[in-house]
Amino acid sequence: MNDGYLDVEQILGYEFEASSFNYTDREVILYALGVGAAKKPLDPQELAFVYEGSPEGFKALPTFAVIFPGTMFQQLLQAPGIKFNPMKLLHGEQHLEIIKPLPTAAQITSRGKISQVYDKGSGALIAIDVNSQDASGDRVAFNRITLFIRGIGGFGGERGPSTRNLNEAPDREPDAVWQEAVPENQALLYRLSGDRNPLHADPAMAAIGGFKRPILHGLCTYGFAARAVLRQFAGNDPHRFASISARFARHFFPGETLVTEMWDAGGGAILFRSKVLERDEFVLTNAKVQLK
Amino acid sequence: MNDGYLDVEQILGYEFEASSFNYTDREVILYALGVGAAKKPLDPQELAFVYEGSPEGFKALPTFAVIFPGTMFQQLLQAPGIKFNPMKLLHGEQHLEIIKPLPTAAQITSRGKISQVYDKGSGALIAIDVNSQDASGDRVAFNRITLFIRGIGGFGGERGPSTRNLNEAPDREPDAVWQEAVPENQALLYRLSGDRNPLHADPAMAAIGGFKRPILHGLCTYGFAARAVLRQFAGNDPHRFASISARFARHFFPGETLVTEMWDAGGGAILFRSKVLERDEFVLTNAKVQLK
Repeated sequence: MNDGYLDVEQILGYEFEASSFNYTDREVILYALGVGAAKKPLDPQELAFVYEGSPEGFKALPTFAVIFPGTMFQQLLQAPGIKFNPMKLLHGEQHLEIIKPLPTAAQITSRGKISQVYDKGSGALIAIDVNSQDASGDRVAFNRITLFIRGIGGFGGERGPSTRNLNEAPDREPDAVWQEAVPENQALLYRLSGDRNPLHADPAMAAIGGFKRPILHGLCTYGFAARAVLRQFAGNDPHRFASISARFARHFFPGETLVTEMWDAGGGAILFRSKVLERDEFVLTNAKVQLK
Repeated sequence: MNDGYLDVEQILGYEFEASSFNYTDREVILYALGVGAAKKPLDPQELAFVYEGSPEGFKALPTFAVIFPGTMFQQLLQAPGIKFNPMKLLHGEQHLEIIKPLPTAAQITSRGKISQVYDKGSGALIAIDVNSQDASGDRVAFNRITLFIRGIGGFGGERGPSTRNLNEAPDREPDAVWQEAVPENQALLYRLSGDRNPLHADPAMAAIGGFKRPILHGLCTYGFAARAVLRQFAGNDPHRFASISARFARHFFPGETLVTEMWDAGGGAILFRSKVLERDEFVLTNAKVQLK
């Protein structure tokens, strides 16, 4: 068992320590710039996400809420019934529901627990459900973070449902396509929103991880793609944003171009996927934004 | 006296309320990204200014210390013996001395007072001297902020020395030239380091100020230019940086290209000036970095 071990009985339902995150307009703006908002501020469409005095009303990007849990999932290393090499952990999927429109400043408390543990043979799939509430006790957002840990599968657990066909891109031309060059320093900016993993900044650490250079945070491409959907199908109105799901299929290097293909599937459902223009490889798949 | 008034006796020597500024690596990195450091992180030269785990040792850009006084100068509006329209205030010059190498995290207290008041006829020239110390009481940095307030000259004060020829660019080819495209969203990023003046973000406010679009902070171009000197003449070693002075000659629009011309004047003195490539107009003049 060099790769570690997993005991489903012990770990399923495990509750993480609550974490708090207090933010002001500075964090809201930093996040928005971190996912590429208003790269061209003379295009006024996104100025309201990056300027607290915006005439149309300052507002937070809905995907800002993915940072509420912070690096809670690192507590998995201390959880009972599991042992693994953190280098073998992959962020598989992220699902986010916005329950209350995000304030532009708030005191957030997040509580997470392990809601799913599946045995995929080659590894374990673990889902962490995180509920975030504001100071008044109102539930603001729900994140489901799905992690895949290579090398600790085969523990005799359930395989779980296949999600291969979930939110699959339709077999027709996209209804909208948004192409965006991602600046070379984007990961350095995004990481100031909380995820300081050196994989995204340090060439030596990236090499250890098997990459020729530092890669962008999966949740950063996620934010870029969500902006594209919000712009194309919701007039940049965060109040219309109900939820988003996506699978992190591959790495993306800052400096590359992200192309997001979108399909209006009816009933407010926008299916999408994002690829690297230069390599024609998909980085986000099985993805959907639900509008209201 | 529609433009306001100035009473030298009352205002000269006026002491501002002390201000405090607590910073962590996050503010250090945010500032460095705000002045364009590591825009191309694959060029490893500036990674140490933007990555706290840098193998060669994380360090703060020396010009980070210009933000220690914060927006102290706004207290000028409440000072006795002066009344003016804040829209008539221009940031004229900034002089910074690094007394102790900047820590990458610190609790800074800054104390400022009005050290010079000159009557330039068309307006008043006011210098504010700000000393900043760390929690141990050590003096870390000294800023002299020179402001020009149009419309309140002619109060019968001294004209003061001419500084037109101070740190003048030599009449020969520069010893080094550094050209750098400034991203369109640079002001949105720089303002998160503290100066939230809407002139730098809001097209409507920029128009009121007489600009066709939001302009970059003068201290942001200052930071870009200082990086160029530090790179060209000091191997990016902040310990060699003693002081910097520059005059803000003109506005710069984010999205334009900044060209910094530098001359080695001997004895560690590097004279420089910076211009807008697209308009061939100088934005920083009478400028010098003193190295040690």
